Amino acid sequence: MTDRLSQQFAFLQEADRLKGVLRAGRLTDGSRFENSAEHSWHLTLYAMVLADHAPADVDMIRVLKMLILHDLVEIDTGDVPIHSQGGTAHASALQIAAEAAAADRIFGLLPPDQAAAFRTLWDEFEANTTPDAVFAKSLDRVQPVMQNIANGGGSWIDYDVTLEQLDTRIGHKIARGLPAVWDWVRTRAMPFFS
Amino acid sequence: MTDRLSQQFAFLQEADRLKGVLRAGRLTDGSRFENSAEHSWHLTLYAMVLADHAPADVDMIRVLKMLILHDLVEIDTGDVPIHSQGGTAHASALQIAAEAAAADRIFGLLPPDQAAAFRTLWDEFEANTTPDAVFAKSLDRVQPVMQNIANGGGSWIDYDVTLEQLDTRIGHKIARGLPAVWDWVRTRAMPFFS
Repeated sequence: MTDRLSQQFAFLQEADRLKGVLRAGRLTDGSRFENSAEHSWHLTLYAMVLADHAPADVDMIRVLKMLILHDLVEIDTGDVPIHSQGGTAHASALQIAAEAAAADRIFGLLPPDQAAAFRTLWDEFEANTTPDAVFAKSLDRVQPVMQNIANGGGSWIDYDVTLEQLDTRIGHKIARGLPAVWDWVRTRAMPFFS
Repeated sequence: MTDRLSQQFAFLQEADRLKGVLRAGRLTDGSRFENSAEHSWHLTLYAMVLADHAPADVDMIRVLKMLILHDLVEIDTGDVPIHSQGGTAHASALQIAAEAAAADRIFGLLPPDQAAAFRTLWDEFEANTTPDAVFAKSLDRVQPVMQNIANGGGSWIDYDVTLEQLDTRIGHKIARGLPAVWDWVRTRAMPFFS
């Protein structure tokens, strides 16, 4: 058991570094950039609050676990802002490979059974095809929109984003998992693009 | 539904302020104090990793939800470091009343059904008697110990804490929910008190 605890605490200590990974968006008061650890916490709260928008086949504990784990790879790769990717809003092959290598290293710190289980959840989130992953990914997309609305435009101003780009890069993805929520949110985002 | 979403997003925006509440402990690299939002995220990861130490009657989704919610009251009250409380390590009546008022206000932003459900979970965590709460609370106690071990003593040095005080204020509480883990952790904490 001691070896197992050594591996588990080595992973938990390494995970602490996610608190130092900065995102492109700011806190709602605009005072500083958000880090990926506190963003991940906020998403778990989003999941709890917006649970009534999840389809009946969504398993909330799997959603929470995906959200807790989803950004850990950024310890190695950093956060790549969606609006910084030259308008494609798709991860490059290089970025995908770097994140897979990061997942190998970071989840590999755990005992093998947990490493495999956590990696499976992260792969499922990234693939974004199961109901659990689609719901979790929609939460990951909508939270930065709400942060920008609250802080006066945030990364939309920094990256000179248009409403059409917001729809293409973000809105269509939120609408997959949270269609009614996206209708509501988009109305509140529009004034920032007029 | 629009009113409900307005209430839900008002709560989620208010929750963002937890990212600005600083704790007495530092990150593992010692670079800065930890905030209560990223601490809450770290605890959910602790729960996932140390799940094999939970008694069979622990319901992990309730544990995760308690950990996600447990510090929200600090938006109003701030974090009160355990080692700052004149050696009693018990919350004062004033602090308990302030936290209850904060819970009323913050959970009260939600639609009534969610306000009641979240408040019930928070009350259960605070009462620390059910198996779910005891496990969650033990995680909340062990994470700062591991942070201090990693960063060279942290708040133990700041507050001039002895090993006896660590045992009384923290260790006995961790041992309630995570006895084997506390044995392992205590051995690694001891060198900081010799």
